[in-house]
Amino acid sequence: MFKKILYPTDFSDASKKALGYVKQLREAGAKEVIVLHVIDDRKIPGFIGPDEGAPVSGMQVEKMITMMEEDAEKETRATEAELKKSGFDVRVRIEKGIPFRDILRIEEEEEVSVIVVGSHGKGVVKEMLLGSVSEKVIRKSKKPVLVIKG
Amino acid sequence: MFKKILYPTDFSDASKKALGYVKQLREAGAKEVIVLHVIDDRKIPGFIGPDEGAPVSGMQVEKMITMMEEDAEKETRATEAELKKSGFDVRVRIEKGIPFRDILRIEEEEEVSVIVVGSHGKGVVKEMLLGSVSEKVIRKSKKPVLVIKG
Repeated sequence: MFKKILYPTDFSDASKKALGYVKQLREAGAKEVIVLHVIDDRKIPGFIGPDEGAPVSGMQVEKMITMMEEDAEKETRATEAELKKSGFDVRVRIEKGIPFRDILRIEEEEEVSVIVVGSHGKGVVKEMLLGSVSEKVIRKSKKPVLVIKG
Repeated sequence: MFKKILYPTDFSDASKKALGYVKQLREAGAKEVIVLHVIDDRKIPGFIGPDEGAPVSGMQVEKMITMMEEDAEKETRATEAELKKSGFDVRVRIEKGIPFRDILRIEEEEEVSVIVVGSHGKGVVKEMLLGSVSEKVIRKSKKPVLVIKG
């Protein structure tokens, strides 16, 4: 029932809290964890368009993407090490796209048993921007979802 | 983390599926389960008002409530027996009210560790009427929620 866990993380406190629950599920038969981070395409300046703020050169955009990728790499590797220490088989996936869509796509691709996801309990605007990722995942996922409040 | 589980049930297939996950959490340290059924006040004809359909006498309403209570009693006791067999301490609570509100009230009252709830994957209208119970619980709960799709 909990054999293969999909753990999407945006490295927030809510995601980190959710990691504790992932570990606890080891005792309930969880064996494998897919650690997923989706770099949100929409946060990359080129996608917003040149009208917003100072014009962004292609080179600046490239540099920003590289930084986001390096951050993601570092954070997910730390999580991987932590989960391996708890006895899990771990795989890391870093994707670029729209978080809730990629989470749902990988849920299907990987045929996971359960999704464990943190949810931001922030203000209304942040909630609309961020909290909605977990809401959309819960609404559309075919598999059980364990939601941890931040 | 999973010590005390609140398991709200409306006796649907989704709720029954969720029960399997409750049992599985035994291995992850779950010890106690509160089995909760909320008799939905709004389904009792007197609450809809005398304009809808044939007039309902006070005696008919009384009879209907008694039937709902007897059903709830029977179903929850069966669940209680099943969970006890799995080694849980179990308490049954039957309430009358608005399901999501009572679920959230009892979550606080009982200081549970996690809520395990089934979610109906039905058509749009049913979704609005029924599925929204789990959505509201997820949105407003302070504790982790494990959502099982029907």
